[in-house]
Amino acid sequence: MFNIGILGCGRIGQVHAISIGAMDSATLVAVADAAPSAAEALSARHGARVMDAEILISSPEIDAVIIASPTDTHFGYIGLAAAAGKAIFCEKPVDLSSEKTRECVAIIEKSGVPFMTAFNRRFDANFSAMRARIAAGEIGDVELVAITSRDPSPPPASYIERSGGIFRDMMIHDFDMARFLTGDEVIEVSATGSALVDAEIGRLGDVDTAVATLSMRNGAICQISNSRRSSYGYDQRVEVHGSKGMLRAGNVLENTIEMANGAGFCKAPAKYFFLERYKEAYRAELEHFVTAVTNAESPSPGIQDGLAALLIADAASRSKTANATVSIGS
Amino acid sequence: MFNIGILGCGRIGQVHAISIGAMDSATLVAVADAAPSAAEALSARHGARVMDAEILISSPEIDAVIIASPTDTHFGYIGLAAAAGKAIFCEKPVDLSSEKTRECVAIIEKSGVPFMTAFNRRFDANFSAMRARIAAGEIGDVELVAITSRDPSPPPASYIERSGGIFRDMMIHDFDMARFLTGDEVIEVSATGSALVDAEIGRLGDVDTAVATLSMRNGAICQISNSRRSSYGYDQRVEVHGSKGMLRAGNVLENTIEMANGAGFCKAPAKYFFLERYKEAYRAELEHFVTAVTNAESPSPGIQDGLAALLIADAASRSKTANATVSIGS
Amino acid sequence: MFNIGILGCGRIGQVHAISIGAMDSATLVAVADAAPSAAEALSARHGARVMDAEILISSPEIDAVIIASPTDTHFGYIGLAAAAGKAIFCEKPVDLSSEKTRECVAIIEKSGVPFMTAFNRRFDANFSAMRARIAAGEIGDVELVAITSRDPSPPPASYIERSGGIFRDMMIHDFDMARFLTGDEVIEVSATGSALVDAEIGRLGDVDTAVATLSMRNGAICQISNSRRSSYGYDQRVEVHGSKGMLRAGNVLENTIEMANGAGFCKAPAKYFFLERYKEAYRAELEHFVTAVTNAESPSPGIQDGLAALLIADAASRSKTANATVSIGS
Amino acid sequence: MFNIGILGCGRIGQVHAISIGAMDSATLVAVADAAPSAAEALSARHGARVMDAEILISSPEIDAVIIASPTDTHFGYIGLAAAAGKAIFCEKPVDLSSEKTRECVAIIEKSGVPFMTAFNRRFDANFSAMRARIAAGEIGDVELVAITSRDPSPPPASYIERSGGIFRDMMIHDFDMARFLTGDEVIEVSATGSALVDAEIGRLGDVDTAVATLSMRNGAICQISNSRRSSYGYDQRVEVHGSKGMLRAGNVLENTIEMANGAGFCKAPAKYFFLERYKEAYRAELEHFVTAVTNAESPSPGIQDGLAALLIADAASRSKTANATVSIGS
Repeated sequence: MFNIGILGCGRIGQVHAISIGAMDSATLVAVADAAPSAAEALSARHGARVMDAEILISSPEIDAVIIASPTDTHFGYIGLAAAAGKAIFCEKPVDLSSEKTRECVAIIEKSGVPFMTAFNRRFDANFSAMRARIAAGEIGDVELVAITSRDPSPPPASYIERSGGIFRDMMIHDFDMARFLTGDEVIEVSATGSALVDAEIGRLGDVDTAVATLSMRNGAICQISNSRRSSYGYDQRVEVHGSKGMLRAGNVLENTIEMANGAGFCKAPAKYFFLERYKEAYRAELEHFVTAVTNAESPSPGIQDGLAALLIADAASRSKTANATVSIGS
Repeated sequence: MFNIGILGCGRIGQVHAISIGAMDSATLVAVADAAPSAAEALSARHGARVMDAEILISSPEIDAVIIASPTDTHFGYIGLAAAAGKAIFCEKPVDLSSEKTRECVAIIEKSGVPFMTAFNRRFDANFSAMRARIAAGEIGDVELVAITSRDPSPPPASYIERSGGIFRDMMIHDFDMARFLTGDEVIEVSATGSALVDAEIGRLGDVDTAVATLSMRNGAICQISNSRRSSYGYDQRVEVHGSKGMLRAGNVLENTIEMANGAGFCKAPAKYFFLERYKEAYRAELEHFVTAVTNAESPSPGIQDGLAALLIADAASRSKTANATVSIGS
Repeated sequence: MFNIGILGCGRIGQVHAISIGAMDSATLVAVADAAPSAAEALSARHGARVMDAEILISSPEIDAVIIASPTDTHFGYIGLAAAAGKAIFCEKPVDLSSEKTRECVAIIEKSGVPFMTAFNRRFDANFSAMRARIAAGEIGDVELVAITSRDPSPPPASYIERSGGIFRDMMIHDFDMARFLTGDEVIEVSATGSALVDAEIGRLGDVDTAVATLSMRNGAICQISNSRRSSYGYDQRVEVHGSKGMLRAGNVLENTIEMANGAGFCKAPAKYFFLERYKEAYRAELEHFVTAVTNAESPSPGIQDGLAALLIADAASRSKTANATVSIGS
Repeated sequence: MFNIGILGCGRIGQVHAISIGAMDSATLVAVADAAPSAAEALSARHGARVMDAEILISSPEIDAVIIASPTDTHFGYIGLAAAAGKAIFCEKPVDLSSEKTRECVAIIEKSGVPFMTAFNRRFDANFSAMRARIAAGEIGDVELVAITSRDPSPPPASYIERSGGIFRDMMIHDFDMARFLTGDEVIEVSATGSALVDAEIGRLGDVDTAVATLSMRNGAICQISNSRRSSYGYDQRVEVHGSKGMLRAGNVLENTIEMANGAGFCKAPAKYFFLERYKEAYRAELEHFVTAVTNAESPSPGIQDGLAALLIADAASRSKTANATVSIGS
């Protein structure tokens, strides 16, 4: 049996606890949270022990830790877990600082522990099937990619303040998706944005409506658009144009019902937000992690993928400020 | 130049006048209508002379007549036009009585004049492409057909009274479509219906909601549904299942716009009614007639097709009354 | 804890065992099957004991039985379980004979045990949402219903032989759906069919392509079509027209991907068959059963619903033979 | 009667000649082309006289000229026609040079002749309906716009050489669409591109795959993508996100047919190219011109709109070279 401990018992920690509960091959042994009540609630629901985070990480019965705590705690937990030889499943972003993320890369590579950056969208059945078909050459060489991500409503100001900005917090998923779908690397980025949804977000120095244009090593171009507002549910679409055709993945609607009357033909809104939309992807990513680690294979995406997406986000932030195209990692 | 006279200057006569106006190869020479004002209005718009119907039919400068007058005048005009050796383009139904229609068949076959029954839907680009693909074997042997036709709103009682009932007035188009798409003949029909939309229609002995099941000679089954009510525009759909796959033709919407908000994803209603929906089909059917006649070929559908559809409609009416399946032509 | 025993460890029994495994409130205690290996396989996977069916039914620790064994065993098991005071969850059809089903109704009503007929489609999220919207009056009075059900491929002859024919085996789901969606009763049925997919099915006296027209008490008409062949996956569609609008539920596709190239715009096939398509509905129906029984409420659909659907199927069979419309229960 | 002369008898000149032929209120009086055979062919088909361009422009019987000749002739013809007091309908771009276009603006404004820049897409029924709904406030304030335009295949090198580059030749339509749909002005642009479709286009210093990001005065952001390759027909889509919802206009497919088989559900490709897709828009734009001029109103879009789009195209070209965001008109 593969024994897992969860660090951070918030929304995502709870999702992972449920996923483990449905697995034959893994057990949730312990949970930790800075807020004892959160840890106890999760413990009660899943029959896991409550531990201090440090004790959990060093506990000999634990095989792997899921780091689902606030981003600023990731760095410390990664260091401890690597030192303790635990497999690590870490929510994105690894860290908001590319320097500290590079340190994590060094730590992980030196320690040799398995590490997975939890880019859940790669495990969505639609996007993973698209990747497989692109990799199989079905649309030829990739030329143009369009990624649309829109949240149903903006998060509170308190979240925005610690988020690292829309490029590191929200668009980082799309940067990873661009790399994942094309199997290519981003070399340049040009980005801009406005605070159109919530003026408070603008006062905090962030934007809520943002776009970026990525130039890929092989010449393909990728357009991304993000908004913190979507009246019709969580908007998650991808369109990839190649030399032989186009593949796109549309939204997942709440149901298949269509109503027709004088207003026309109306389908249901998209599923509300990430927990509904990616429910199955969250399960699949954890299953991949458990399977990979128990088979002594490297889980993917790894820590280098976490760093790569963050470097694009950094460049996008700089591009927005400089009003110019910026090279990645420069 | 191919000279045409129009008998009946109502809605459909006007549609045909416009079609002729756009043709290089045909001219509208004369029009006739029992109501002089209708004839004069059409004449003024298209520069054609107003004539008495009988004079028009026998006029030596006329090559062909379009019979777009009330159904009970068709029989007489067909006789006169056949005697005068004119090519005949006749709106459906040829006549409400199958006996008189059979007489027309005899008259036309004896006279040898070209005759076309104006089943406009055969000339819709979508349905004609479907027919071509079915005939080419793309879906293998036809097994099951579903035809849906719904008018936006019921006609006035005065129309219903002279219509011959929903099977002869409305579903006759679908009977023809079943024959056209399958290239097969109907051997049995079972039909029923209710007056759900307008109680007045029920009092007149007709129904406004009707269905029929057709058994085709080759074993295929066809389901048809009709309603005199459709809140979302003129509903005109066909679905044909074969041994190798399915082909369907969907509605033609008013435009391609989709609106998304909290209500979901809404497309425009279907085009309102037959004049909008089949505008191009009306043009194409007349062009086919003119081209066929000027090339000394038989226009299609011919008078036998008009008779065949009427015999199915008769059988459907009897089936509804008898609560039993009825053989065609029996 | 609510203790369940499963009678019949085939495909559906396995589905229910998994559903129970995911429930907090119920436990799979025992399984039985005429084939010991099937019972043992299921037992091993879910940690339940293997018992003889009769012993299982009378075991005091069992609160409810799931009857998922061959149809001809239902009658006996229902009698034993009712006598033992167990709640009963029974796969459809309750029995192929309406007389024996009527006996079951009497037994259940006399014993007072909770009984649920497992019409899984009622628990599909799309169809249940449609029912709720129809019941809320969103489309006004129901006028016309169209139900399409197509299996991906015909079952083997051995299955057909014991199936009771397409109306009792396959279309019975659609008969129940017509009653469920409209909240109305069927009073007359007209049905026909052909053996077009597999000549062997015809030799066995059954058909593989069938249609029925139902007349509902309130005047609405329902058209159903069934085929044992669908090249594009399991086809499960419903369309309900009312006085104010139309609601339809489309197919559930394998994924949201659309491919565009010279062939046009291509979406994925529908999910392959009932296990994939109704996976979640199977879970939801069992959850409803457990919740209802533990709350001392009647689960729905009940045994009367099982009888009602069978009586329509009987009438459809007679209609096909008689080539006439047949009244229900007559 | 409103008398029109056409300068340039190529593909677009022919389209306009057909449109005039279908109008009651306008007549095609004369045509001119540097290639006498082209002028004669068009003349023969529409019964118009062949004239020298200069003579046509100064002919007293001509009320308006359609300038559909090569772009480098526009400037001269505009000067002559303005001097002759003719109403001018000019294909886009007015000129490839913004300086000469500014001169044209001065000439037109001084002369006071009616002038229309032929941005045909504004007259597409879908896009004009979208504009009306946006202007009516249906989606609130515009926040994000996505425009996709893809030609089915690249033009020959000879065309590319004189085209002014993809931003002035192709994306200029999308720049106009951004202004038209938002009713707002572009203040900054960032653009990039690659030669991925045809290496020869790259050798000529142009690109065949290009994207641009526009910042609008009111804060909205617009993403545009262009490609000279589309395997599935002429791709012409627009998506506008506002504070209250989203409106999008999809592609116009060749027909409404859907084929379903093991490959899934396949719809027809989009209409092949601009002549098929915008057939009705070409007719509508000319009708607008004729109606406006005969009613002594200013046709729209005017010459300032032609200049505005060109200035954005110039800025996009500079942005691509400079790898930086560029202000419009700077």
